Amino acid sequence: MYELTIITEFEAAHQLPDYPGKCSRLHGHNWKVEVTVCGQELNHLGMVMDFKDLKAEVGKVVDTLDHYYLNDLPAFKSTNPTAEYIAKYIYDTLANNSVFQQGISIRCVQVWESPRSAVKYCPQE
Amino acid sequence: MYELTIITEFEAAHQLPDYPGKCSRLHGHNWKVEVTVCGQELNHLGMVMDFKDLKAEVGKVVDTLDHYYLNDLPAFKSTNPTAEYIAKYIYDTLANNSVFQQGISIRCVQVWESPRSAVKYCPQE
Amino acid sequence: MYELTIITEFEAAHQLPDYPGKCSRLHGHNWKVEVTVCGQELNHLGMVMDFKDLKAEVGKVVDTLDHYYLNDLPAFKSTNPTAEYIAKYIYDTLANNSVFQQGISIRCVQVWESPRSAVKYCPQE
Repeated sequence: MYELTIITEFEAAHQLPDYPGKCSRLHGHNWKVEVTVCGQELNHLGMVMDFKDLKAEVGKVVDTLDHYYLNDLPAFKSTNPTAEYIAKYIYDTLANNSVFQQGISIRCVQVWESPRSAVKYCPQE
Repeated sequence: MYELTIITEFEAAHQLPDYPGKCSRLHGHNWKVEVTVCGQELNHLGMVMDFKDLKAEVGKVVDTLDHYYLNDLPAFKSTNPTAEYIAKYIYDTLANNSVFQQGISIRCVQVWESPRSAVKYCPQE
Repeated sequence: MYELTIITEFEAAHQLPDYPGKCSRLHGHNWKVEVTVCGQELNHLGMVMDFKDLKAEVGKVVDTLDHYYLNDLPAFKSTNPTAEYIAKYIYDTLANNSVFQQGISIRCVQVWESPRSAVKYCPQE
């Protein structure tokens, strides 16, 4: 199997109102996002898919988070905007995207809330 | 499944007495440690577990290695303090820790002996 | 299971003649290569295998790519030198290498074409 991974970032504000500590305050992060797709076959160019196309699709999703107050967004209406739910939101949005051709699937989304703290969402594992 | 990963470091001295080369000399490293835990469910805050709690537990284990001569420690009485056995020691110590709640388990521990050399211990794979 | 990962780099030129865009032009990259081998057992030194030996074997393969025009090489006679086929070439060459002892196998090769774009080849997954 081949796995393609691309990395991007977004900056946003959030808070976890019912958290017993500093995270309950309004604050923010530079989140780093790693998206991995996989496929068994290569196309006539020798690629699972074009990095450029993958970056464009991920970019559209990340644009819905970048420089927003996450708690205000529809995606986090009923959940806290934790790294867990941010990863799940990005994964679910991409998984419903018809741009990915047959034979290519999203494998996981990893969200780094700091250079030392990450959550990976891999629903198939 | 969700995976949480946190990164920390420790600095220590070690030597591999029966190694046929430079590693037999007393030397040291800055080891980077990546600990990954996993869980299927999120708690009421939207987390597998608090990064802060995971860092605290890993910190307790890493404190037993930091700024020591590893060959002198009980953990390496009968084995060489290689990256392999360091990863296994951290994993085993965490796996026996009752702080991790039901439904959360240690998945793997990766120890970087240099920015280009790592060992990952994943006993369940 | 234990996994050993080592990281190295090579610099080379390539082009994808039939690609509809900039990659069809002659250009080049600093490719970063991560090779992972795995084993269940540790030897008498407490290692899956010596990092030094793994680096030496990977170095021999990477030397066949470093500072070449990849499209000219026998390895890419019938395929484009994409990150996908570069990862597969490194994996296949290492997998046929008798230096790896019984019980140690190549798990995957990940090739970073930029700090934000990678392909991992894992034929066993």
